[in-house]
Formats: sequence, C-alpha cells, structure tokens
Amino acid sequence: MTETVITSDKKKVVIGFEHRFVMIGERINPTGRKLLAAEMAAGDYSRVLADAVAQVEAGAQMLDVNAGIPLADEPKILAECVQLVQGAVDVPLSIDSSIVAALEAGLAVYKGKPLVNSVTGEEERLEQVLPLVKKYNAAVVAISNDETGISEDPDVRYAVAKKIVERAADYGIPREDIVVDPLVMPVGAINDAGRRLIYLLRRLREELKVNTTCGASNFSFGLPNRRGLNAAFLPMMIGAGMTSAIMNPLHLEDIQAILGADVVMGNDPNCGAWIRKFREPAPEGAAAEGARGRREGGRRRAREQA
Amino acid sequence: MTETVITSDKKKVVIGFEHRFVMIGERINPTGRKLLAAEMAAGDYSRVLADAVAQVEAGAQMLDVNAGIPLADEPKILAECVQLVQGAVDVPLSIDSSIVAALEAGLAVYKGKPLVNSVTGEEERLEQVLPLVKKYNAAVVAISNDETGISEDPDVRYAVAKKIVERAADYGIPREDIVVDPLVMPVGAINDAGRRLIYLLRRLREELKVNTTCGASNFSFGLPNRRGLNAAFLPMMIGAGMTSAIMNPLHLEDIQAILGADVVMGNDPNCGAWIRKFREPAPEGAAAEGARGRREGGRRRAREQA
Repeated sequence: MTETVITSDKKKVVIGFEHRFVMIGERINPTGRKLLAAEMAAGDYSRVLADAVAQVEAGAQMLDVNAGIPLADEPKILAECVQLVQGAVDVPLSIDSSIVAALEAGLAVYKGKPLVNSVTGEEERLEQVLPLVKKYNAAVVAISNDETGISEDPDVRYAVAKKIVERAADYGIPREDIVVDPLVMPVGAINDAGRRLIYLLRRLREELKVNTTCGASNFSFGLPNRRGLNAAFLPMMIGAGMTSAIMNPLHLEDIQAILGADVVMGNDPNCGAWIRKFREPAPEGAAAEGARGRREGGRRRAREQA
Repeated sequence: MTETVITSDKKKVVIGFEHRFVMIGERINPTGRKLLAAEMAAGDYSRVLADAVAQVEAGAQMLDVNAGIPLADEPKILAECVQLVQGAVDVPLSIDSSIVAALEAGLAVYKGKPLVNSVTGEEERLEQVLPLVKKYNAAVVAISNDETGISEDPDVRYAVAKKIVERAADYGIPREDIVVDPLVMPVGAINDAGRRLIYLLRRLREELKVNTTCGASNFSFGLPNRRGLNAAFLPMMIGAGMTSAIMNPLHLEDIQAILGADVVMGNDPNCGAWIRKFREPAPEGAAAEGARGRREGGRRRAREQA
C-alpha cells in the first residue's frame, strides 16, 4: 500500500488507502481575503496564527500555508509564516506557492518533512520544483495539467500524472512522495465532472498507485447549497480512492462527511473517531459513569431516536 | 445498460446506472409502529394514505407497502392498502411481504408492473415467489442470503445473487427485472461492513450487471448521529453502483445526500433537480424576474457565501 509520510518536528501524518482521510486546512491563504492579505503584507500574523489554531482544533491533520500577495515579498512572508505556524501548532504543513523562490524559502526554515504545493506537468515547473523536493526530502502535490492546459479527458490527465511520477523517479523521488491532484472542475459547467473524476481517481489508485488530494469546494462552484453538495461529493471521491483534500475544516458539513466516509471505508477502527465526535454529552450528574457509560448511553439514545 | 422498469397505471420509473437514484419510501410498514399496526388491523387506512402522500411530496419515486401485522389477515389488508394507495398517489409500488399469499393478493389487484419485495436464495422461496413474479409480469427484489443465513463473505453473497438471477432466467424472468439487495450490515458491529459492500456492489454492477437496492439506515444502527452517517454512506454506495434504496424520504439529510450523488454521477442533467430543490426563494417583489432570474440570483448569493 502506498503511504505518504509527512512530518513536523512533533507529529507524523500518513496519507494512504488504509488510513483515515487527511484534511489539510486551506484557510491560511490571502487569495480572496483582502484583510488577511493586508495584514500579512504589513507583517501582522495574528490572524494567521488564529486560523492555524482554529483549524487544528476543528480537526485538520495538516495545514496549507500560502502567502501569495501581489507585489509583496512572498519568500520572506512565507518563511516567516511557516516558522510562526510551526511554533503555534504541532501538525505538519503544506508549503504552498507558485513562486519557486518562495517554496525554497519556506523549505529552508521548515522542521520535518513537508508537502510542497505544487508541481505541474509543465517542463519548466518540473525542472525547477523537483530538485527542491529532492534537496529538502519533501513530498509534493502533482497537479495533472501541463503546457496544453487542463484536459477534459481523464485519460490525458492520467498521462500527465504518470509523466510527473516518472520524472520524479529520475530525480530519486519515490512514487509514495507524489500526491496527485486530479483537478476538480465545477459540475455546474461540466455535467460529467464528477463521473470523470471517479474514473480518474480509480485509475490513479489502481494503476498508478498514488495518493491523491484536491481542492474539493470547486466542484459546487456557482450552485445553490454548496455545502450540501460538497458533503455528497467528498464521500464519493473517498470511495473512489481519494486520500486527502485541501479544504476548510471549519465547515462542519465537510467534517461530518469525511468522518462518515472514514467509517464506511473501514478506516475508523470501532467507529472510535465518529463516536468521540458525535456522542451526546452525558446528562447532569452522570460523570461518575465514566466514558464507557456515556458512550453506551449515547448509543441507546441514538437507537431510540432513529 | 440494465434498466428495470416499474410502472403504475399512471407513471413509469426506471432504475438504472444512467438514471437518477430511485428513492422507495419505506414508511407504509407497521413493523415497530404500534399505532399504525392497530389502525391497519382495524381497517383504518387514513395514516397509510397520509404517509403515501407525504412521502411522494418529499420526493419518493416509488412506495413500499407492507402489511405485516401478527395475527391479522395480511393478504386482505395488503390488497386493500395497495388499491387505496394506488388511488391516492400516482407512483409505482413495491409490494412487500414475507407471506406468499399476501404477495399474490397484492399482485392480483395492482395496476401496472410492480416490484415484489422479496425473494431470497432459499429454495422454498425461489419456488414460491418466482412463479408469481412471472405470472404477474413484475420485477423482484432478490436478497442475497440463503438457507445458510447471511454470509459475511461478499463473494458468497455475490454467488447467492447470481443463483437467483439464473433461477429467475429458468422461469423466463430477465436479469433486468431482478433488483439485488446485497444486505447492509451495521458498521458498529462489523467494522468492514462498508468496505465489503462497496466491493460487492461493484461486482454486482460490473459482472452480474444488475440493479440494486438496500435498507440503508441499518448501516448506522447503534451509533450516534445516525442521519449524519447515513448521509455519507448513501453517496458512497451510489458511487459504487447502487441504483435504489428503500428509505425514509422525510429525512432531509438523506434526500440531500441522494440528490447530491445524482449530480456527482452526472445523472442530474444541468443540475436541474438540485437547483430546483435548493435555490433560494426570490426576494419580495422579484416575481416578475421569472424563474431564470431567480435561479441566477440564487447562484450569485451561493457564490458570495461560499
């Protein structure tokens, strides 16, 4: 089984088919967040730290850190954020930038084995990013597009992913350190987007045998009740083979969908995480019953209500 | 593609891989409903009719009708319910009993091509139920257990389903009129229940090429937040190949999960059903904009909120 190991100086996360789905918190990203962008550009990282703590408390096993602010000194800001976030929370990070110098600045200060977000199938990106991934012994998100753009044909995307895996091998980066992003398209624009993604995820899992990630919320773009649609989309992608997502862990619908999918996949032993998250609080004065008593009580009530 | 056609005298429903998932309302069933059982036994069908209308209004494309009341005249009650429900709503029915004489009484009065619920792989059931299915030109739910009970091995269950399909062929009943129930087990008792079901559903779809149904809510038995877990379970089963379920359409979480899964599977053209269900109401005075204006407005707001 393909296991992608990501670490901080305090914690290890394993992305893999036999493991719980890995939620990578997406909030530390100034894109579309004007206030956060202004604060980060001015060297005020208080909101970055609050976002880090809130996402880990909500259940994120990893955090993505992005400092993409136009005209700002992105390498400096990204490196500072990586250091501060690593001081505030113990989960591993995904270092996220489209600027290679920023990726390197983040990697240089990171403690542990991070995820680099990202490389594509474009020749120039491959030649710039893969040596960095190797130098810093990182794992990397591989986005399945290349110079020709994003193909609507899942077999073309599969071929791009395969090319990246093969090129990475040339640099001495093993398959398990490549996490493929098959690219989620809005189903409101492309009616077959979900069906094609299920097909592509199965090929990536069964043939290329790689772990996968995605920006899940893009699927519902432009439609009403986006959270409800995401909550159906995520479990179906997990069932097809997806093993992580870059997402907002503050959305309870998404957390519930993912914890439920872990139960269905058999990756939540004895449904322990599900029960811890959703068991009802003990009634007043019942504390002496202990955790087992509370759990059994929660189960009884659930049965009666259903 | 395997298409199971079920009809009433007014409406046709198609169960199939390329069609919207078929929700079969489960409420008309006295099991565990003491008040309903007492009323039905006394010939008072007012609650049966109210349940029929409410389930169809909530989105059920078919209704299951069961009259299993201990010591009551089940054939008579089932036949009366079938006639009354067919007079009150236009959707096709599933005629549900463990008593063969009751199935025949229901079939004799039914207008259209119903679903018979159910036959198993037990020799005696096969020999009693399949001739009835053929005689009345019905479709039938095939439950994948036999004299040896319910196997935990999905390959054994597959073999039982295959046996039923082959025996049905001997009676002149085509494969598309067999809807296999792979049997949903509680994941709280069997940690691999979901994973095995995904495996079995794929075999049933890709090798035996049959449609499938299940009693979905059994999966979450004994666990907290059952509706939340069902809402992750249903889309994953649909992704694996399930094409219908016997369920409670009054649970909004389930409806949302199923409509979302239809979108992901590409079986909701232009996301039309999703948009109709979840678009926001037009603001006061906006009626003149018309339906298109309302939809676009709903889309804009959804985008801003997400």
